[in-house]
Amino acid sequence: MLTFPEFIDYAGTFVFAISGIRLAAAAKVDLFGSFVIGIVTAVGGGTIRDLLLNATPFWMQDPKFFITIFIALIFVVIFRNRLVRLENTFFIFDTIGLGMFTLVGIEKTILYGHPYWVAMFLGMITGIAGGITRDILINEIPLIFRKEIYAGACIIGGALFALFDYFPLTRNWADVACVASVIIVRTIAIKYQLGLPIIQPDSDYEGDS
Amino acid sequence: MLTFPEFIDYAGTFVFAISGIRLAAAAKVDLFGSFVIGIVTAVGGGTIRDLLLNATPFWMQDPKFFITIFIALIFVVIFRNRLVRLENTFFIFDTIGLGMFTLVGIEKTILYGHPYWVAMFLGMITGIAGGITRDILINEIPLIFRKEIYAGACIIGGALFALFDYFPLTRNWADVACVASVIIVRTIAIKYQLGLPIIQPDSDYEGDS
Amino acid sequence: MLTFPEFIDYAGTFVFAISGIRLAAAAKVDLFGSFVIGIVTAVGGGTIRDLLLNATPFWMQDPKFFITIFIALIFVVIFRNRLVRLENTFFIFDTIGLGMFTLVGIEKTILYGHPYWVAMFLGMITGIAGGITRDILINEIPLIFRKEIYAGACIIGGALFALFDYFPLTRNWADVACVASVIIVRTIAIKYQLGLPIIQPDSDYEGDS
Repeated sequence: MLTFPEFIDYAGTFVFAISGIRLAAAAKVDLFGSFVIGIVTAVGGGTIRDLLLNATPFWMQDPKFFITIFIALIFVVIFRNRLVRLENTFFIFDTIGLGMFTLVGIEKTILYGHPYWVAMFLGMITGIAGGITRDILINEIPLIFRKEIYAGACIIGGALFALFDYFPLTRNWADVACVASVIIVRTIAIKYQLGLPIIQPDSDYEGDS
Repeated sequence: MLTFPEFIDYAGTFVFAISGIRLAAAAKVDLFGSFVIGIVTAVGGGTIRDLLLNATPFWMQDPKFFITIFIALIFVVIFRNRLVRLENTFFIFDTIGLGMFTLVGIEKTILYGHPYWVAMFLGMITGIAGGITRDILINEIPLIFRKEIYAGACIIGGALFALFDYFPLTRNWADVACVASVIIVRTIAIKYQLGLPIIQPDSDYEGDS
Repeated sequence: MLTFPEFIDYAGTFVFAISGIRLAAAAKVDLFGSFVIGIVTAVGGGTIRDLLLNATPFWMQDPKFFITIFIALIFVVIFRNRLVRLENTFFIFDTIGLGMFTLVGIEKTILYGHPYWVAMFLGMITGIAGGITRDILINEIPLIFRKEIYAGACIIGGALFALFDYFPLTRNWADVACVASVIIVRTIAIKYQLGLPIIQPDSDYEGDS
């Protein structure tokens, strides 16, 4: 039997993989290339985190992640005409996955002996770097840098984790606070189309370095 | 004297470097930048593999790889007007190089104690990640995701390696089976313009995550 | 009190971060995304170097780098309309930073037991890879591959370091020779718009691998 965190971890892998496979297919990438992009989307963030932590990448120690991504590939092929109707379901899993991936990244970083601020940053990387790599591979400007509070939700989740984890009385709630805040911030941002401000660029600045 | 595998390894490095240098030059990258892109193309895949294996990157322990790439740079400068006529020769080396790089990646991964399925994936990364990084640096959609069975050939080679290596009677043929199958699959795919199917995207799907 | 090398290290981090934040803002990336791109620009090169050296990334062990980048973000927000007038000041810091980052990369690589030629290459990566990653994230062709002798200045600095460091009589001057040569080469290249030649591409070569 899967524990609940394991279920969410694989569910997060599944929906991240689906987002990669669908965007790859939309960019006319072939079936196997789509599978590779699905893998990168789902495990890329955790892989970069593990390299920074000098840990063996998690997916090299558990074939269930690749199996999950393979099932996602078959799922996309079979249900490709019905996926649009499932957008809301995907959004829910994607958001839960973002929160869970952030938490997994934070906890692993702390386990490796780093302070909260490093954990917050690596938690964010765990959540967003797979999607950024996917966008780079299909040559789009990473949407993550243009959207309603995505990376920022991970940092808010990390900050609440640190706050709750720091005080003994609230320590047991740190995990829940982290995941819940990511989900809530992200959902509110999407619902009300909230975004962070953009620094108004100097009109004549072209960039020179 | 070079052994045959060493000869093929440096020959693979040479042709991968030439492909990087030529594409960089075509994108108006200067001479030194082209050298850097040649390096990335030739050693990028093996470097990512070594980072994932937590090994010191192979080229940091043997200057002959950089020397080979420098010779490739001089070769492109001298023969730039005659390279087109050599396309077929390059294709042969490029394909042999792909097969050899895949095999090198598989064997190193197994040496580090990982199972076949990890070795197949890291063998593929060894073969293709340098070319993908090259395409990202010169801001093209990685061709590898659009072409006749490229990454797929590495996986087929890896699967045959695993099959032959698993049974004692055929173990000695695993290397040959791997390299030969990559070369054969790739040659047939190019000759008959075979590609893997593309998942027909939903017409109204724009991608949102 | 900061030592002079520490001052230059943080000053280099500051100006590299500013270049990332400004380019991100010009590409309509939001405030937090700009902060992330500022981080990547400032610490990306050293991070790739540390991964290749199998060392813990330097910024995970010293929060002052992130604090410096956060100050850079505030600086850009407050002074965004006056930054253009400071171009020359930025250029000076950017160039000093390039020289210092190159030197830091060379010295760390040698400390880890690698020969000069590896140190020269990792010194260059320390200096340029952050800017390249920044350009990839905002989907531009990395300017570094098109500009007046940028990566080349790092290699010249590295070569002079090796030369001065090799002979006992000049060893004490190796650091100065490295940083000074990067600054001088880069300044002359900008002032006289010097660039390295481009390999004239074959007109009908399209690239096929």
